[in-house]
Amino acid sequence: MSIENVIDAAMGRVPCELVLRNCNIVNVFSGEIEQGDIGIYAGQIVGIGDYDGEQSVDVEGKFVSPGFFDSHVHIESSMVEVPEYARAVVPRGTTSVVIDPHEIANVLGLDGIRYMLESSKYNPLNVFVMLPSCVPATQFETAGAYLRAFDLYPLIRDKWILGLGEMMNFPGIINNEPEVLDKVKMATNNYKRIDGHAPGLTGKELNAYISAGIYSDHECTTVPEAREKLAKGMHIMIREGSATKNLHDLLPLINEKNARRILFATDDRHPNELLDQGHIDYMLKEAVAFGVDPIEAIRMVTLNAAEYFDINKIGAIAPGYMADLVILDDLKDFQIADVYKKGQLVAHRGKLTIELSHPRNIFLRSSVNIKWLTPDDFKIKAKAKNIRVIGLIPKQIITEELILPAKIVDGYAESDIERDILKIVVVDRHNASDKISIGFVKGIGLKSGAIAQSIAHDSHNIVAVGTNDDDLIKAVIEVSKMKGGIAVVADGEVVETLALPVAGLISNKPLEYVREKADSLIRALKNLGATVHDPMMALSFLCLPVIPQLKITDKGLFKVDDFDFVDLFVKE
Amino acid sequence: MSIENVIDAAMGRVPCELVLRNCNIVNVFSGEIEQGDIGIYAGQIVGIGDYDGEQSVDVEGKFVSPGFFDSHVHIESSMVEVPEYARAVVPRGTTSVVIDPHEIANVLGLDGIRYMLESSKYNPLNVFVMLPSCVPATQFETAGAYLRAFDLYPLIRDKWILGLGEMMNFPGIINNEPEVLDKVKMATNNYKRIDGHAPGLTGKELNAYISAGIYSDHECTTVPEAREKLAKGMHIMIREGSATKNLHDLLPLINEKNARRILFATDDRHPNELLDQGHIDYMLKEAVAFGVDPIEAIRMVTLNAAEYFDINKIGAIAPGYMADLVILDDLKDFQIADVYKKGQLVAHRGKLTIELSHPRNIFLRSSVNIKWLTPDDFKIKAKAKNIRVIGLIPKQIITEELILPAKIVDGYAESDIERDILKIVVVDRHNASDKISIGFVKGIGLKSGAIAQSIAHDSHNIVAVGTNDDDLIKAVIEVSKMKGGIAVVADGEVVETLALPVAGLISNKPLEYVREKADSLIRALKNLGATVHDPMMALSFLCLPVIPQLKITDKGLFKVDDFDFVDLFVKE
Repeated sequence: MSIENVIDAAMGRVPCELVLRNCNIVNVFSGEIEQGDIGIYAGQIVGIGDYDGEQSVDVEGKFVSPGFFDSHVHIESSMVEVPEYARAVVPRGTTSVVIDPHEIANVLGLDGIRYMLESSKYNPLNVFVMLPSCVPATQFETAGAYLRAFDLYPLIRDKWILGLGEMMNFPGIINNEPEVLDKVKMATNNYKRIDGHAPGLTGKELNAYISAGIYSDHECTTVPEAREKLAKGMHIMIREGSATKNLHDLLPLINEKNARRILFATDDRHPNELLDQGHIDYMLKEAVAFGVDPIEAIRMVTLNAAEYFDINKIGAIAPGYMADLVILDDLKDFQIADVYKKGQLVAHRGKLTIELSHPRNIFLRSSVNIKWLTPDDFKIKAKAKNIRVIGLIPKQIITEELILPAKIVDGYAESDIERDILKIVVVDRHNASDKISIGFVKGIGLKSGAIAQSIAHDSHNIVAVGTNDDDLIKAVIEVSKMKGGIAVVADGEVVETLALPVAGLISNKPLEYVREKADSLIRALKNLGATVHDPMMALSFLCLPVIPQLKITDKGLFKVDDFDFVDLFVKE
Repeated sequence: MSIENVIDAAMGRVPCELVLRNCNIVNVFSGEIEQGDIGIYAGQIVGIGDYDGEQSVDVEGKFVSPGFFDSHVHIESSMVEVPEYARAVVPRGTTSVVIDPHEIANVLGLDGIRYMLESSKYNPLNVFVMLPSCVPATQFETAGAYLRAFDLYPLIRDKWILGLGEMMNFPGIINNEPEVLDKVKMATNNYKRIDGHAPGLTGKELNAYISAGIYSDHECTTVPEAREKLAKGMHIMIREGSATKNLHDLLPLINEKNARRILFATDDRHPNELLDQGHIDYMLKEAVAFGVDPIEAIRMVTLNAAEYFDINKIGAIAPGYMADLVILDDLKDFQIADVYKKGQLVAHRGKLTIELSHPRNIFLRSSVNIKWLTPDDFKIKAKAKNIRVIGLIPKQIITEELILPAKIVDGYAESDIERDILKIVVVDRHNASDKISIGFVKGIGLKSGAIAQSIAHDSHNIVAVGTNDDDLIKAVIEVSKMKGGIAVVADGEVVETLALPVAGLISNKPLEYVREKADSLIRALKNLGATVHDPMMALSFLCLPVIPQLKITDKGLFKVDDFDFVDLFVKE
């Protein structure tokens, strides 16, 4: 594809490779619908006009939009590799995503980031990358990698790297921590973007955070919060994820004056919602149902994203732009007929029409490295009568600290099925160290068996909950045997598993398989008595020591209000 | 100015250097007016909020806008050096300009560009530069420099260089001329912008031109033309210059859907209009009088320009942005009270309040190099009875070709005052070569004397018109003696001059002086009988061999429709 060839095609000196005829084109520049034929050559749009094409497709008056843009997503949350993710989202019109490979980077560091870059190649999806800014997220757990500015530096100029990912460490910014500001300067000095992550930050703290050069945020939960951030220069990414949903709360933010500063993002999307509800197409449909002008809504997932991330030639239907196109039946339900990527038909009526390059042979070392467990490792001697118990709160990721009497058997604290106080263990899975911490959790509801998984934000050690030590240890070992994943064990037998051999986070199987296995795991857990809505998701947040109140990492029980570790046993 | 200090100030840990209190802030992100105090530290806005300042200024509810942006201007047209230009436009609220030093580059090449960069330093004006793309503009005249991609390459990555200037050579683009595309690739490969210049280009030719990566245009003269270009991805710069005025014709283009893609530019601004009418402030006033929303209008000269040129941290009032601020009495007449540049008060009520660095000692060689003239050089032997005469058309830069009988004296063709057919000569002033061409022009109206000037688009050779050879030659020599400029001579005496020693285009005197001298030159010419509206401007376009119909360069008479040189004498 040379510029000369494209000019020749635009002039009509050579025929286009493809002409889409009778289009109702969504023109994101004029904000209007434009009738015409789109000439495409060498993957680029050469123009709208009277072109001859080697191939000609009559779209019969359907709407043609630029491909959609997800401005912030962790693909790891969908538990599939990039090609599988592409297979799910491309037929829904998404042709560009900006990923922050924060999860895999916490496990495998730069190898993880490179793996995501490498596995993104040759897919019908532009995968842009923001370098994870906070690996590890905290010092209170053992991560698989420690990425400082010095480590990220070799990647910052890569053309697929758009900047520095969500800067969760806002205390580090506003308190001028040198290591944090080094990362900021690395991005700024290379004219790259820095994404924000500043839930609830306001006033002078927000001013200071933005002053550092952080001009986006996807953590707004209310219109006033979003309004303040937008007025202060942040591009607002309205997020509709699986763990956190803000779309309907934030739609009233949008008006014709500020719309250009608003983008859409999914952040995380579990397999079931990706398959059942959709992706950016779902957000568009909801926005239009709410009353947002359809073209304005499409701008948020095309032009606005391209402008914020400073990406040329993507996000519009105009000469010189990449021919990433979505053919839509309407601009209300966003029913998608076809998707073209670089001028090639890649999806029709919800299905990819091309072969994926998956599975490609990308070397990635196994990421589960635990010490050789013995039956005694999960035993804990009672040091007092009362213990601190992590109390789940239904459908929230915050927890409460409960002080309850322990069930003590032969001098050891054990799970108490009657009172639903179950043993929870976290095992360092990165360094095969002795770091194993033991606590208790209330609210899971298991009556027998155990579950273990290698998904546990943000360091992704192995977390396990069980009614007895034998099942607990067997579940953890099963996760290790699978090179990561999720295992449910009962009465000494493995009941169900989902192997996640890529960093212990991602399956190497199709999305539908992952979804079925996840459903099957939940069914198995419910059969064992689980009462919590989504046991795996609940477990995945129990290690996150930045969300109140009582959490557990491989280093111990952590009380967020004290911002320090606390003893399991409460001295009288 | 370190990021750490700015964060400290934003947090309120150190006092701001300046706080502007009781502001009605034009928020270009939200599109709304916001009340508040603006904290400024180290030249940057740290935030809007309750800040303490070493200095505190109550603006008493006046409007505060980001400094204005002229998106495309040739400062040479104002005939003053950059500091003098800044003195004129900064008090009118302009704090950023994007210049294309095309005129000086045609004379002095890279030295000219570097001179503009150098003389822009330490002024209260951000002077961004687009590298001239078309030096020389054509092969039909002798320029002072030939800049190929290879020559421009060392400058393209400079932080003040935003890209490649107006690509006038659209035939070169759409016909894939390698030298032209090399320049385009140089800009594109360095992620820099390419400004367009494509009057009247439409359809496939426009598609091809844009496909090359050219995403702006400032040559639209009608709304339909602008609409097509905007829909195809061009940012439309609405121009109101001295030579060409499009503002009022294009204001109806603007609507709330497309406004984000519209910018304002002046292109060229002569001293009298700069002083009497103004700059971007004038365009804003006219736009608002027409009915454009004032905040939307301000966006066109702030945020929209910054976004198009990919300039961070200029063009808005928000944390981390440069404190380039305009304090306005109102958003209707755009009466400007004060201007702050990087947090420093630099202008009050139309006057700069700081000392300019002008004149700085920047070495620049003299640019007028003509052969040693003898009285015979301007004589022309009659070869036929009829001659081709350049016919001026009042107030237009196009001309007509007239075939008229020559006045022949002693075998030589001479000026005929009776019929207003005057001798015009063009002298190569770059290479001191023998290249002198002689023609005749009708419509100037001089009854005695002569005028010579070193401003003659685009190569800026010396052009002179006179009623007799003695005055003609004296005027040309006078221009040479001044190292360039404009000279009026009558009856062997120098009547009036304006020295332009900087490249023969720019004075080293104040703008007011230049304006007075220019007025005086016009008065002198009118006294000598001149009937044309602005004789110097008329002369300056007579050498431009791309505007129909009959023109003259140092290489000869040029007929634009034939796109070739023609003989002065018409054979029977």
